[in-house]
Amino acid sequence: MSYTLYSYYRSSASFRVRIALHLKQLSFEYRPIHLLEDGGQQHKEEYRKLNPMGEVPCLIVDGVALGQSMAILQYLDATHPQPPFFPKDPMARARVIQACEIINSGIQPLQNLKVTQELEKMFGIDHDGQKKWIFTWVTRGFTGLERLISTTSGQFAFGDEVSAADIYIVPQVFAARRFQVDLSAYPNILRSNENCMKLEAFQKAFPDQQPDFPPA
Amino acid sequence: MSYTLYSYYRSSASFRVRIALHLKQLSFEYRPIHLLEDGGQQHKEEYRKLNPMGEVPCLIVDGVALGQSMAILQYLDATHPQPPFFPKDPMARARVIQACEIINSGIQPLQNLKVTQELEKMFGIDHDGQKKWIFTWVTRGFTGLERLISTTSGQFAFGDEVSAADIYIVPQVFAARRFQVDLSAYPNILRSNENCMKLEAFQKAFPDQQPDFPPA
Repeated sequence: MSYTLYSYYRSSASFRVRIALHLKQLSFEYRPIHLLEDGGQQHKEEYRKLNPMGEVPCLIVDGVALGQSMAILQYLDATHPQPPFFPKDPMARARVIQACEIINSGIQPLQNLKVTQELEKMFGIDHDGQKKWIFTWVTRGFTGLERLISTTSGQFAFGDEVSAADIYIVPQVFAARRFQVDLSAYPNILRSNENCMKLEAFQKAFPDQQPDFPPA
Repeated sequence: MSYTLYSYYRSSASFRVRIALHLKQLSFEYRPIHLLEDGGQQHKEEYRKLNPMGEVPCLIVDGVALGQSMAILQYLDATHPQPPFFPKDPMARARVIQACEIINSGIQPLQNLKVTQELEKMFGIDHDGQKKWIFTWVTRGFTGLERLISTTSGQFAFGDEVSAADIYIVPQVFAARRFQVDLSAYPNILRSNENCMKLEAFQKAFPDQQPDFPPA
């Protein structure tokens, strides 16, 4: 199998897929898509042929293009079972998906670049307003997630092994800190994040380790 | 197994889970959660004990509470394989998840009640502005989804059998029409929607068939 990842260093959905590929120890070619340059390289017709949503990430598996981090993580876990991203038991598996979706559909869609761009373009919301908006959704989502994992978390969100939930948590914590959101009310989320950051797969996936990270 | 569904008649994520339960021919107790009355019944502590996000739907399976439509659909499909919501082949399965996520994380989170409420509360965006906002995200998402399924769709989004993608499409079409979004540019999405609406499971899940649908 050959893997090519279209990614933007700072995109949290791309960050998730980089973590997943490194955890599964799969090597991949990295192709940067700059979300701001050239009016957004993700909007180019050539790229939309791969991902019709015009978004990163997009993983090419032997010539077949797949978008959406949840689809990519479940594909990689089905084809490379070790280490597992999801438990085998259907309810335990569903619970991990629930945690992932709090971030995947509950926080990230409301705080990403295209949303803050539209807030500014459509309604003239300035940087301070955008920060308030992002704070609102991160706080709501993390409050729910913290409570959900308060009964399940050990070293990581679900017990003492990494799961897909941690793969969603680390990029969301990174994004929240970029926008200076106070995270002290979420000790379980922070412990998961801290323990993940000791692992090489997470370190290698970090934005500042990517070829398209801008020079200082 | 006993199933209890916390639902709001008009919530599109609740609508998805109702379709799923009816397709699997599982009977369930319906417990309405009114998202507007009493300052939003979903915010009550008693309900947050079941779903810490304070959102509908929430499915109780033999006393165990599960939130997030993607988690619930995958759980139901694992425990009741017929009729299948997802294909068995890992890439075919991932492609269906990709289509679902275009709606689940790409459209619905940006156009639901709590978002339009915050647009008004935080920035004073009026009804016309909210409609413009909703139009933007439905159009972007449906444009991508239409293109994605243009090579896969038959009677339904993926071939001639219902999949999870259709379970996401029907409630999103319903929501888009409520906000008078012109859908004529999406013939594959509309064909899937129309064929689904011939099936009893979809009809029984419709908002106007629920016990909490308000009298005329």
